Amino acid sequence: MNVNGTARMLFTAEEYAARLAAVRLRMAEQGLSALLVTDPANIYYLTGYNAWSFYTPQLVFVPAEGDMILFSRQMDASGAFRTSWLPPECIVGYPESYVHRPHIHPFDWVAFALRERHLIAPAAKGCVGLEMDSHFFAPKAYRALVNAIPEWTLVDSFELVNWVRSIKSPAEIQLMHKAAVITNNAMAAAEQAIRPGARKCDIAAAITEAQIRGTEEFGGDYTAIVPLLPTGESADTPHLTWSEDRLKDDEPVVVELAGAYQRYHVPLNRTFSLGEPSAELSRLADATGEGLNAMLDVIRADVPVREVAAVWNRTIFEYGYEKDSRLGYSIGVGFPPDWGERTISIRSEEESVLAENMTFHLICGMWMDNYGYGLSESIRVTATGVETFTTYKRGLLPINS
Amino acid sequence: MNVNGTARMLFTAEEYAARLAAVRLRMAEQGLSALLVTDPANIYYLTGYNAWSFYTPQLVFVPAEGDMILFSRQMDASGAFRTSWLPPECIVGYPESYVHRPHIHPFDWVAFALRERHLIAPAAKGCVGLEMDSHFFAPKAYRALVNAIPEWTLVDSFELVNWVRSIKSPAEIQLMHKAAVITNNAMAAAEQAIRPGARKCDIAAAITEAQIRGTEEFGGDYTAIVPLLPTGESADTPHLTWSEDRLKDDEPVVVELAGAYQRYHVPLNRTFSLGEPSAELSRLADATGEGLNAMLDVIRADVPVREVAAVWNRTIFEYGYEKDSRLGYSIGVGFPPDWGERTISIRSEEESVLAENMTFHLICGMWMDNYGYGLSESIRVTATGVETFTTYKRGLLPINS
Repeated sequence: MNVNGTARMLFTAEEYAARLAAVRLRMAEQGLSALLVTDPANIYYLTGYNAWSFYTPQLVFVPAEGDMILFSRQMDASGAFRTSWLPPECIVGYPESYVHRPHIHPFDWVAFALRERHLIAPAAKGCVGLEMDSHFFAPKAYRALVNAIPEWTLVDSFELVNWVRSIKSPAEIQLMHKAAVITNNAMAAAEQAIRPGARKCDIAAAITEAQIRGTEEFGGDYTAIVPLLPTGESADTPHLTWSEDRLKDDEPVVVELAGAYQRYHVPLNRTFSLGEPSAELSRLADATGEGLNAMLDVIRADVPVREVAAVWNRTIFEYGYEKDSRLGYSIGVGFPPDWGERTISIRSEEESVLAENMTFHLICGMWMDNYGYGLSESIRVTATGVETFTTYKRGLLPINS
Repeated sequence: MNVNGTARMLFTAEEYAARLAAVRLRMAEQGLSALLVTDPANIYYLTGYNAWSFYTPQLVFVPAEGDMILFSRQMDASGAFRTSWLPPECIVGYPESYVHRPHIHPFDWVAFALRERHLIAPAAKGCVGLEMDSHFFAPKAYRALVNAIPEWTLVDSFELVNWVRSIKSPAEIQLMHKAAVITNNAMAAAEQAIRPGARKCDIAAAITEAQIRGTEEFGGDYTAIVPLLPTGESADTPHLTWSEDRLKDDEPVVVELAGAYQRYHVPLNRTFSLGEPSAELSRLADATGEGLNAMLDVIRADVPVREVAAVWNRTIFEYGYEKDSRLGYSIGVGFPPDWGERTISIRSEEESVLAENMTFHLICGMWMDNYGYGLSESIRVTATGVETFTTYKRGLLPINS
């Protein structure tokens, strides 16, 4: 906390100003005279506000001109200055009596507070954008706004702030490099813990310990997704969490995890093999590795994203494989339940074009019938090619027990 | 996985049948001919389905009669049988091409799939309930349903399934007892790690490691909320996560954590004191402890919840304190971002009455200006009184370094 009673800024005031300016430019392009931001990652990106408070409704009011205002539950608003740089008068708490009540909603109160501040009419000049597909904005919250502010024409802002986030600043890239060190350590902790007979929960515990402890120089943050550990036959599906079962002597273990630093994520997927891998798994691993290499070879600024998917498809098709699901997604700030930015996906239908300092998790998850293989790299697009955030060895990694 | 290719059931078939029957009874009372369940905790409660897949849309269709159907992303549906006991024909995956697209939504596809199965018309006889305030049901998903199924009269089901969950079965209580052992171990790990100069991330790492490793007999699950560690002045706000800062020689550390087993949570809040606590903090701790005791004394089946809040208010008022926020909430199954059930809150406005085998986190969080104190117990309501899940010592706990 600095002398003004506001938080230490993680980024410079200029960087936050540039983010807001970029958001306002898009708002103007989309005809929005105001935007209500409810995605915790977007709130963090614009205001620095960072707390586990997103399980009760909160939003940032972003007018075309004038101050942003953060609305959250009173008990959270009173401490918000500890992480957000917004001045105290721009952090407003709604009363506790609005929490978890069937017939009223905190945004009833927020609407009144906006009205009291004479902020309804200026925003009614254009449309007001809502993040209609964000995780912590429920239909009940939406209807509260519709009912309480009839003057506003509410429209989907789509992933407006998320798109601004898709190109990283040098300061953000630095944070991701720190996250990558943690990623590397966490994957090494997984490799260390994977042994025949090891309980899956013990592997997850070792990974999480490494993720949160971080390094001697800097501490780790919680990740938006817990370590995922599909093993053996259950490696045919990607999102199972661990159990207390023990690893068999002879099964592959697919590990997907991330390192996080100051909410910036660098994910990584590797597959470890206990015992002798089957011929079909080895063949799948080879094809997947080639597919990833082919993508890395083609990535650079100005390449259409769908070309990246195309080289993957061509490469694995030669092995007789096909993959329906996407090959990666934009990454950066993440809050549970997702470390993806919900904007660019690496797939043939994607219409966007790669730009310098976009960052992706390129994930080649191959979920077959009763077996599977996973391999990924988190990368930064450069003017001339690609930088991988980690250098963890690839391939089907044998565990020598 | 059993011989039928479906998951090992965590509860008996009879228990799952009883849950569904209780849900359908409430549906009939609320005039619902079908219910769409989107809350991952409710999906788990009814079907056993458990995976980190709730960041893309999913729902369970619960008709008044006939089979439940789980809809999720294709890659998740194909592995859902590993945790859900639903038969394969009742688990349906939507195509990958519907994921994270601005102009279409997975529920467009789900609506078509319901139509194809002739399930729209029967449900149109009454109203169809939606969980309008659940975390992973976005306004965009809601509007997709409104547009795609004009035959349906959609109404808020409120927390219908959550209310069924509020009274626990003996089997659920057993799982919570296992979670409580982990809670105790995790709090002991915190106590062990809290030392002058310790980094907060290292304390959080030690807690998380204990949470996930569990015991030698059974493994731990991930918790719906990460460990919360407000310290010193920042203990005036409850939901800050850790930083890489080091503990001072002389500050209180408020720890809120849970143990989780098979998604059942038992939370606990304790305050540790480094160095000599201030007189005002000691006084606050005494008052809070008395307030908690007063609540524990009055809790038993058939007592109105607001009476529990009333004895707290009277007790701490004698010390000159007041607390605006609620004193607890119903607990059980939890998925991020919340381990509360969003039904009963311990507060003066609450209208419900305690019943045997309701379970609560009684949390006395006192957030003052620049200091704070936290104390809690997770409890089960019995016919004659109360059972606390853990036996961790209370009070302002000194750390002897």
